[in-house]
Amino acid sequence: MRPNDRAADQVRPIKITRNYTAYAEGSVLVEFGNTKVLCNATVEENVPRWLKGQGKGWVTAEYGMLPRATHSRTRREAASGKQGGRTMEIQRLIARSLRAVVDLPAMGEIMITVDCDVIQADGGTRTASISGASVAMADAFDSLVESGKLKSNPMKGHVAAVSVGILGEDILCDLEYVEDSAADTDMNVVMTEDGNMIEVQGTAEGAPFSQEQLMALLESAKVGIANIVEAQKLSRSN
Amino acid sequence: MRPNDRAADQVRPIKITRNYTAYAEGSVLVEFGNTKVLCNATVEENVPRWLKGQGKGWVTAEYGMLPRATHSRTRREAASGKQGGRTMEIQRLIARSLRAVVDLPAMGEIMITVDCDVIQADGGTRTASISGASVAMADAFDSLVESGKLKSNPMKGHVAAVSVGILGEDILCDLEYVEDSAADTDMNVVMTEDGNMIEVQGTAEGAPFSQEQLMALLESAKVGIANIVEAQKLSRSN
Amino acid sequence: MRPNDRAADQVRPIKITRNYTAYAEGSVLVEFGNTKVLCNATVEENVPRWLKGQGKGWVTAEYGMLPRATHSRTRREAASGKQGGRTMEIQRLIARSLRAVVDLPAMGEIMITVDCDVIQADGGTRTASISGASVAMADAFDSLVESGKLKSNPMKGHVAAVSVGILGEDILCDLEYVEDSAADTDMNVVMTEDGNMIEVQGTAEGAPFSQEQLMALLESAKVGIANIVEAQKLSRSN
Amino acid sequence: MRPNDRAADQVRPIKITRNYTAYAEGSVLVEFGNTKVLCNATVEENVPRWLKGQGKGWVTAEYGMLPRATHSRTRREAASGKQGGRTMEIQRLIARSLRAVVDLPAMGEIMITVDCDVIQADGGTRTASISGASVAMADAFDSLVESGKLKSNPMKGHVAAVSVGILGEDILCDLEYVEDSAADTDMNVVMTEDGNMIEVQGTAEGAPFSQEQLMALLESAKVGIANIVEAQKLSRSN
Amino acid sequence: MRPNDRAADQVRPIKITRNYTAYAEGSVLVEFGNTKVLCNATVEENVPRWLKGQGKGWVTAEYGMLPRATHSRTRREAASGKQGGRTMEIQRLIARSLRAVVDLPAMGEIMITVDCDVIQADGGTRTASISGASVAMADAFDSLVESGKLKSNPMKGHVAAVSVGILGEDILCDLEYVEDSAADTDMNVVMTEDGNMIEVQGTAEGAPFSQEQLMALLESAKVGIANIVEAQKLSRSN
Amino acid sequence: MRPNDRAADQVRPIKITRNYTAYAEGSVLVEFGNTKVLCNATVEENVPRWLKGQGKGWVTAEYGMLPRATHSRTRREAASGKQGGRTMEIQRLIARSLRAVVDLPAMGEIMITVDCDVIQADGGTRTASISGASVAMADAFDSLVESGKLKSNPMKGHVAAVSVGILGEDILCDLEYVEDSAADTDMNVVMTEDGNMIEVQGTAEGAPFSQEQLMALLESAKVGIANIVEAQKLSRSN
Repeated sequence: MRPNDRAADQVRPIKITRNYTAYAEGSVLVEFGNTKVLCNATVEENVPRWLKGQGKGWVTAEYGMLPRATHSRTRREAASGKQGGRTMEIQRLIARSLRAVVDLPAMGEIMITVDCDVIQADGGTRTASISGASVAMADAFDSLVESGKLKSNPMKGHVAAVSVGILGEDILCDLEYVEDSAADTDMNVVMTEDGNMIEVQGTAEGAPFSQEQLMALLESAKVGIANIVEAQKLSRSN
Repeated sequence: MRPNDRAADQVRPIKITRNYTAYAEGSVLVEFGNTKVLCNATVEENVPRWLKGQGKGWVTAEYGMLPRATHSRTRREAASGKQGGRTMEIQRLIARSLRAVVDLPAMGEIMITVDCDVIQADGGTRTASISGASVAMADAFDSLVESGKLKSNPMKGHVAAVSVGILGEDILCDLEYVEDSAADTDMNVVMTEDGNMIEVQGTAEGAPFSQEQLMALLESAKVGIANIVEAQKLSRSN
Repeated sequence: MRPNDRAADQVRPIKITRNYTAYAEGSVLVEFGNTKVLCNATVEENVPRWLKGQGKGWVTAEYGMLPRATHSRTRREAASGKQGGRTMEIQRLIARSLRAVVDLPAMGEIMITVDCDVIQADGGTRTASISGASVAMADAFDSLVESGKLKSNPMKGHVAAVSVGILGEDILCDLEYVEDSAADTDMNVVMTEDGNMIEVQGTAEGAPFSQEQLMALLESAKVGIANIVEAQKLSRSN
Repeated sequence: MRPNDRAADQVRPIKITRNYTAYAEGSVLVEFGNTKVLCNATVEENVPRWLKGQGKGWVTAEYGMLPRATHSRTRREAASGKQGGRTMEIQRLIARSLRAVVDLPAMGEIMITVDCDVIQADGGTRTASISGASVAMADAFDSLVESGKLKSNPMKGHVAAVSVGILGEDILCDLEYVEDSAADTDMNVVMTEDGNMIEVQGTAEGAPFSQEQLMALLESAKVGIANIVEAQKLSRSN
Repeated sequence: MRPNDRAADQVRPIKITRNYTAYAEGSVLVEFGNTKVLCNATVEENVPRWLKGQGKGWVTAEYGMLPRATHSRTRREAASGKQGGRTMEIQRLIARSLRAVVDLPAMGEIMITVDCDVIQADGGTRTASISGASVAMADAFDSLVESGKLKSNPMKGHVAAVSVGILGEDILCDLEYVEDSAADTDMNVVMTEDGNMIEVQGTAEGAPFSQEQLMALLESAKVGIANIVEAQKLSRSN
Repeated sequence: MRPNDRAADQVRPIKITRNYTAYAEGSVLVEFGNTKVLCNATVEENVPRWLKGQGKGWVTAEYGMLPRATHSRTRREAASGKQGGRTMEIQRLIARSLRAVVDLPAMGEIMITVDCDVIQADGGTRTASISGASVAMADAFDSLVESGKLKSNPMKGHVAAVSVGILGEDILCDLEYVEDSAADTDMNVVMTEDGNMIEVQGTAEGAPFSQEQLMALLESAKVGIANIVEAQKLSRSN
């Protein structure tokens, strides 16, 4: 039995609060149960040097965790003088996922940076970051449309992500921290809103997994992602 | 005329939300108008090496700003590989202010770290941090009393801080960003809850200031701090 | 048509040279076509601090690229003062993959570090690293058995990895650099020698991919990995 | 009784040696008793990038301490790889103080950097730095006037600084190290040569301080600063 | 008696393999007995900023050691975040030595970077690096002549280096690790192919050395370097 | 003709001021003409970790240059976040030179650190550092003898150093900056007080040098070093 009587393929209650802070062009607080991530999208009319003059845009992301987002305090990366391997891995994943749903040439020479800062961490912070960042980025693009800098929003649809895992004999969707720690296999799945895959990252923490298990994990992820996309769309319809 | 028709010595609307996050021993979201700072106090039963074996405790603080807390995006300190001079200056000030109201020997060999992370910055983030951190620290000490690790809360009272400034001919209390940018002199005042001074840091940005102006600034700060202390006490009485 | 008339699911010629350098407890130069990685396994009778006293061992890995392993010179990470995100991501993947086939408690408090340094890069350096490191690690464990420090080799079998990709309509196995750059989807698959999965990391570089394509990619990876495992075993039988 | 029978508001013997080194445009060794700081002002015809094209100048400062300026050796900041928080705080204070007495637009696009390096530290190194740097900067500006690059010296007068403190019941001016360590409250005051305030930084190390004490500290600082300004002027009249 | 019955002024067996890797403009694996260094020369049509517009070229070098080139594992410099003093000293020496035999103005605004990476270290890695880098650089210049970017190779001849030492009463040439560790004095000598000196760096590790010993060391170095130059020329004649 | 009519083998006027600062166990300001270096020796009863328990001592050195010791300002290494290659090379040379004249086992587990900070640089800062550090170290050892911690001073005599160079057809001793910049070959020689060699580092900046020139350089260095040793001894006899 999962905490709060969740069904195996049921995602945690999702809450997406837009315009959470006042200055970012897109600002979303995304909550998956106790996991809370603030996703702020910044628009800059200026692309990285290696891209200048090509007439296309860029989307990047940074990820951070407040020191006490976790059960015990994690050392502040700014104080230790570098971002750890896990942080870099995650922010690269978020950025790739976002770029996969954007028509970069249609952006013109504009850059979007999405900062995903974890306020509270109860598992699934990278997938929540992607799911929230998609909404923040959409709002940022809308602001460019409103100000006349873009004719239309260059996003091809939302991108959403969820973690799935194998715990004993069960395939579980949207793992929270206690489930994640105990899982044999943990997989992060990133999909477009119409259910195609952008990233699949599965890791056997304990026993290796079979192709059948992989299929079952993907099925579970699909169900979860459909729910997340629904929440994304709902949030944007208000 | 100040924004929102504030009187010269009137602080912005203060909101102190306790237990804002789930894991920290003390967790406070403090808001002064549009300035919002999350203050998380962590308890560790372990003092810094240079203090070991002396039977007394320690209080320290770290300060950070989310990249898009500001009007335009500020570079993430974790990414640039070091904390800037302003950050270090502020976190040293917060820590000194907190220690000034704690009976360190009464703590035993326990360390409190208060992380002040700015979610949204509209002026006065360091003073808001001190004022919020005082409440978060008080809650953290209470948790030690509840768990029987301390007999009583070793705080001598609250510490609160406010910025005051000279704008043209006016002495203004609790400057917001547009006021701060335009001020000739900016002073941060940290006081105990009974109105004695712990820190006074006044800087002439434009013309130098006179002793009379300094006195007027302190008077204004006193009024503001009295209101902040009231808000601190009220928040803790719930 | 692939370069050198390779079939779609054919891996490049594999060459595994053991005892490539003189001092490491396991030293393997692994070549996949023009990709050449030197994998040196070091034994230390000393585990990381967080593991001390638990009676179990640890396996870790580091990855580097000689500056001129690539077509144009890449900046030396030691000179730029930090390892990039890509490097960290890769060395974490190698280490996880190796640990997945080792019985850590059976090692006792011993640590194996495998350094994977790319001498020449023509695509697939991370998968070549894993495949070569498995052999180097096996040799290092053998040296511990020979010296009487371990009763038997604690590896459960080899771990091998291959990259697969979608290029136009084709599913290709063991991408070389020109193929990798052109691929729509790139997937790294890490398997145990009996064909179970340890890691699956698929990324859509261009269009998203479907579940059918994912299945086809895995099938192709299985074929390739079977060949790699054969080469690993053959090298160890000499 | 103070060391060397100093009166409570008496500064230590001040010695200002101009042209102390040969190459800097302004070079001053300033001594307050045993505290010795070398202040070298460098002129560069080049402003920071963010200021280019605005036709105005800039003044900045750096502060350092020789490792054995102190009673026991302090670690060299160049070796530890970063400047500490105290160093950054001090150099920011020195720079702000110097800029407060310079007519920046009158400088044209010229930058002055004043390096304050502590040769021997017996308390009050930051205030000695400011007082010495003012003379070094004045000499550097004079060199620009002599070479015809400026029509007149753009300084509005000297800036001087002193530390004052409360030790038991006494208000003491220009604390030396043993006094500083024992003081309850320590305040650094920076003033223009005509006695207006530029910076006031007071910190309660022990008990909080009252407004009366603050006033008394300022009175004492005024007396000290008047003596320092006299020494500054005298040194420049030679 | 030296290992492998070497005579006192006999260098170890030298092996120079050109075109060792595929992409560098010059790529040499140089072996002195068990010491193996990969020297890759990179051509860039771009000089450092301080040299731009002067119509002359530049030659620089970087040095690294694979972590397990040594008997016990050495920490990876990229992981520790900086190059150590020994590394910097060596790469500066290699670069100076190479520049001494190049007519920089004849190069035009081209830069050669030679990366010397130690695969296996058994003493004399810096002198092997210089000797191998000379050949790699010559090949890189030849490639520029072949492509018509230079009219002729701007090298004035080879540069070669050897270490010599005093062990007890013996003067030994081309020290291997066990000899180097035991030597009283260790001297690295860099010469042009016609026997003139470019660098002489002698260090007394134990007892100081006399002028007579210095002369004897230089004589021994001359013999060794003549053999190395022969090997360099032979390798290039193939 | 040399500046100030110096003869070819004449060192600049040497001035050695002992007890230059108040707190170091040995403190020497050494001047060679316009080159001025402050050498402070610190005693710590604590050896580096790798030496603990062996009953012997250690001598180390650090070198720095004040930003405006030079004709134009050099960037502060503490601000740029690392010590450059030149600095590391020099401080390693100073430390080796000092250790060569100390009986380390006779020191017991004591460490001497000599900080050499260049106040003014007019050529020969590394050789002046060594020559001054020898005196500072001797004073520090004397203080240990006086306090009864050592029975006798464990130095075997002084160590001194000088730079010599070839300028056109002349062999010059103790190069000042303008000579150093113009020299074809520059050699630093470190000797014991009885004229044996500890370090010889010769570099051809322009044309290579012959063995005859090397001999002539050494002869010139011997003359200079004899004068320096005399000055060292004289300074210690006061």
